[in-house]
Amino acid sequence: MKLERYGHGGDLATATEAYGLPQESWLDYSSNMNPWGPPEIVGELMKEHWRDVAKYPDPAVRRLRAKLSETYRIPAESILVGNGAAELIDLVVRVFKPEETVLARPSFSEYEEAVLKAGGRTRSVLLREERMFELANAREFASGAVFLGHPNNPTGRLIPAHVLDELREAGSRMIIDEAFMDFVPDEEELSYIRRASESEQIQVIRSMTKFYAIPGIRLGFMVAHPDLIRRLAEAQTAWSVNFLAQLVGEAVLDERAYAERTKTWLLEERPWLSGELRSLGLVVYPSDVNFLLVSLAGLEGWNVGRLQRAMAGRGILIRDASLFEGLNDSYFRIAIRLRPDNERLIKELKECLR
Amino acid sequence: MKLERYGHGGDLATATEAYGLPQESWLDYSSNMNPWGPPEIVGELMKEHWRDVAKYPDPAVRRLRAKLSETYRIPAESILVGNGAAELIDLVVRVFKPEETVLARPSFSEYEEAVLKAGGRTRSVLLREERMFELANAREFASGAVFLGHPNNPTGRLIPAHVLDELREAGSRMIIDEAFMDFVPDEEELSYIRRASESEQIQVIRSMTKFYAIPGIRLGFMVAHPDLIRRLAEAQTAWSVNFLAQLVGEAVLDERAYAERTKTWLLEERPWLSGELRSLGLVVYPSDVNFLLVSLAGLEGWNVGRLQRAMAGRGILIRDASLFEGLNDSYFRIAIRLRPDNERLIKELKECLR
Repeated sequence: MKLERYGHGGDLATATEAYGLPQESWLDYSSNMNPWGPPEIVGELMKEHWRDVAKYPDPAVRRLRAKLSETYRIPAESILVGNGAAELIDLVVRVFKPEETVLARPSFSEYEEAVLKAGGRTRSVLLREERMFELANAREFASGAVFLGHPNNPTGRLIPAHVLDELREAGSRMIIDEAFMDFVPDEEELSYIRRASESEQIQVIRSMTKFYAIPGIRLGFMVAHPDLIRRLAEAQTAWSVNFLAQLVGEAVLDERAYAERTKTWLLEERPWLSGELRSLGLVVYPSDVNFLLVSLAGLEGWNVGRLQRAMAGRGILIRDASLFEGLNDSYFRIAIRLRPDNERLIKELKECLR
Repeated sequence: MKLERYGHGGDLATATEAYGLPQESWLDYSSNMNPWGPPEIVGELMKEHWRDVAKYPDPAVRRLRAKLSETYRIPAESILVGNGAAELIDLVVRVFKPEETVLARPSFSEYEEAVLKAGGRTRSVLLREERMFELANAREFASGAVFLGHPNNPTGRLIPAHVLDELREAGSRMIIDEAFMDFVPDEEELSYIRRASESEQIQVIRSMTKFYAIPGIRLGFMVAHPDLIRRLAEAQTAWSVNFLAQLVGEAVLDERAYAERTKTWLLEERPWLSGELRSLGLVVYPSDVNFLLVSLAGLEGWNVGRLQRAMAGRGILIRDASLFEGLNDSYFRIAIRLRPDNERLIKELKECLR
């Protein structure tokens, strides 16, 4: 059974069906969550407010939108909150229905699925291994619409500012997925949300679940011109954002110490883990975020299927990156976790590959 | 400001904006929740499992589907779980795209909104006041598709079995919203879910949030032929059903004592409250569920706008039912709550209408 049976990493139920290990025993490197886990305030709110699930969530998500507006200094009218970024990816494509959407490859599979579900078609532009998968050539992307990860998943790279500017000048609708942008130190300068709030050409989707390690409650938001936000809101399902997501979302935005600790950890852990992986003979691509794209190309006899099975046998899940169009079976992706877990990962990988 | 600014009752944030009373102080008769509140197990699960929100929800909702399958004795392959019934209402219409969908009026406004969002058109068939709003004539409904509440909201009436059978024989696609069916004593006999699991003609949508008083976490499911469930699942947003909804949904299905208490309370409270309302000169229509459609027709000088404002001034929210197509401004809808609340409602209504 494929661990990515439903198209993604982090599927512990399938891992358990396939290998028998109980769900809580897996060491999961296949989904890109902040390893510090949910801030304590999440537990406090759930203990204190559980009886409030007897009320409908605010259909207009007013308090969380006000908080996002204050945090990012963009108007609340430019913000739409969603049931995870996944809902917003579907919604933006369904409402704007671009005929052709250009995708960089490899990239997150939901972009293509959303386009196909909405009856559109995609055109793929390959990111080049020899350029370390950096999106370099804006001209190839000119189209009715482009859907880009910034930073991109699974490659972990930001799009250089001058390339984004060129894309903007080319006039395409730009749908930019910034699901991992909060992990980037220069987030404020590099994010396109400010521009998205003013222009009808740019829509930015953000996730709140990776950085705050709360994918179980589902929470994302979109930034766009207020006229577009109104159209998107009309097409959205009623009460789509559950009560706890709204409550927790508001609170985690105040978790400054948690955010600082996360950024400090990542700046130290990413080079350390990359170095350790390289010392095992693996190719590790440069990353701007909390996960790494890795290649087995230098190791004879190995491919990702074999490695994924071997590691699963040791209780560790890694992401088969050959399932991303544009990558072959030498690629895998791993999250960056805390040092003790990373040491175990390296130890098990070393024993595996020996 | 209209209390139903976003099209529904239970919008405490809007009530607070309009009348200043804090959200927790309203006595809410405008949304149709089980007044016993969420079962205690909901709080226990949230306290125990809050750290598990760091994991993705199961994309295939396997454990809850298995539990629903066992509870209702229908195959798990015939069940799709959704982010509230609202998501499933949108999804079924978007996937099957009937050209014309016939709606009974008055009925839940989301049916029409879903059809229009999906680019279809609706045709209205009026339920007649002189028949106590019972759906009586199947012939008028023959079309590509019919979307019906069973029991219907805001009228609170079941569709007679022989009428449903006639509709089935007429060959229309039947989308049946059984959001309030768990409040009906003969649920097992009257529900269409068993038939929906076997036929491509019938799809049934169920809510789990009214009966278990958990609308804040969003949870509904659909029953249909396995081939249709596969098509619907492909079109659904990834990880649409949050982790807590899955966990809580599984647990509440075992709350037999809670279910018994609810049914016992309703059998006693509905005739009592109806009687009290009638003694105030109001017309109360027969109801099979936990809410009542009421008319001010006999009371000179009163309409629902005036009554809604007067009651809001007393801290009580009622639903303006004139917003349902097919009803004029003499109609309002109220949930049935526990006796002490109902006594307060009657007292305040009496003072108001005097």
